Amino acid sequence: MTSLESATNPAHEVPDVSQLVVGVLGGTGDQGRGLALRLAKAGQQVIIGSRDAARAEASAAELGVGVRGADNATVARESDVVIVAVPWDGHAAILTALREELSGKIVVDCVNPLGFDKQGAYALKPEEGSAAQQAAALLPDSRVTAAFHHLSAVLLQDESVERIDTDVMVLGDDREATDVVRALAGLIPGMRGIYSGRLRNAHQVEALVANLISVNRRYKAHAGLRITDV
Amino acid sequence: MTSLESATNPAHEVPDVSQLVVGVLGGTGDQGRGLALRLAKAGQQVIIGSRDAARAEASAAELGVGVRGADNATVARESDVVIVAVPWDGHAAILTALREELSGKIVVDCVNPLGFDKQGAYALKPEEGSAAQQAAALLPDSRVTAAFHHLSAVLLQDESVERIDTDVMVLGDDREATDVVRALAGLIPGMRGIYSGRLRNAHQVEALVANLISVNRRYKAHAGLRITDV
Repeated sequence: MTSLESATNPAHEVPDVSQLVVGVLGGTGDQGRGLALRLAKAGQQVIIGSRDAARAEASAAELGVGVRGADNATVARESDVVIVAVPWDGHAAILTALREELSGKIVVDCVNPLGFDKQGAYALKPEEGSAAQQAAALLPDSRVTAAFHHLSAVLLQDESVERIDTDVMVLGDDREATDVVRALAGLIPGMRGIYSGRLRNAHQVEALVANLISVNRRYKAHAGLRITDV
Repeated sequence: MTSLESATNPAHEVPDVSQLVVGVLGGTGDQGRGLALRLAKAGQQVIIGSRDAARAEASAAELGVGVRGADNATVARESDVVIVAVPWDGHAAILTALREELSGKIVVDCVNPLGFDKQGAYALKPEEGSAAQQAAALLPDSRVTAAFHHLSAVLLQDESVERIDTDVMVLGDDREATDVVRALAGLIPGMRGIYSGRLRNAHQVEALVANLISVNRRYKAHAGLRITDV
């Protein structure tokens, strides 16, 4: 498919998201900080969250580009779209605590439940099927999507890297919500947000990070995915 | 990474596989026929198998390019590398029946255990973890790998398509065996075989086909995957 065809494929159309505030829970971690940086550089209003407001503010000041910091509950309340970039260990507890603040919001889960042993990374099997389905179960009043699983936190945070050539698989059962998330992904140079199915098919997308870790070890790379023919 | 760097990354080196005979179980199905065609066009000796030898021979004659046909047991016996491209339904039974013939052979499982309902495709959860792990459990004397999951059978079989720009994720616990499979994948114009982890991480690679089916529906595409930065 040529880029012209790609540009005219109506499935690639996205809504205007320029006025939306994006919050990042776990915004002081590597993945969260990297996403906050890239979205803020693209002109989006971004607030990063932490349990400790002072820590979030300090991390935001370091990032610059207009990023603000606050405690997780404030971030959830003041954002339209909330990216969940917390460790899998704390995932259920944080979402349970923020259920009310996240009500009505678009939630973007990007958590990869992985275990590690001598042979490397392997996929954990959350009881609900996936981290994203756990989020959906804990947040019945939110619009839960899943995305941003396969991005290298190293590349995201490296400001000398201008383009990150990779696609963002966006999953969810709410079309409008996945369209917003696709739009946000597409703001980052080199990235496209590609709709990639319902939440019930989130496990394999999360788990695939274990394979990318194997690729990175073998090829000494920061591997990502590009979806061909779209 | 430039193509020069890619070419000089020792992780991309592959052995000479030009003398190996490749068998395809389920070689009269769309996926099997497509793989047989592409490998034979690349100069490999290929035999396709079916329960019914006459059917395999007829299908081989249609394909041309030197492809031979035989019953599954003969294919397993006469091949060095055996691609398993059978429906998930018949997977365990066929492998159990061919255990002896497949002894010592490199087995390449490319089966995707999927279910379908009104909402589309979803991943099944084999008791052993994945189709590839089921193959490894049933074939303790074979060298089981997993690969070729994400290729469009439509593109594989369409001779007007000269290049298929996609990577083949190759999994396995036997380095030499995965190197052979990477080499075979790399024979097909546009493809690279990329080592992508151990068999215990095969489930998500198999299951990701459910997501690619969603991509195909939304974008009217024949989606594949390219691994970036390798």
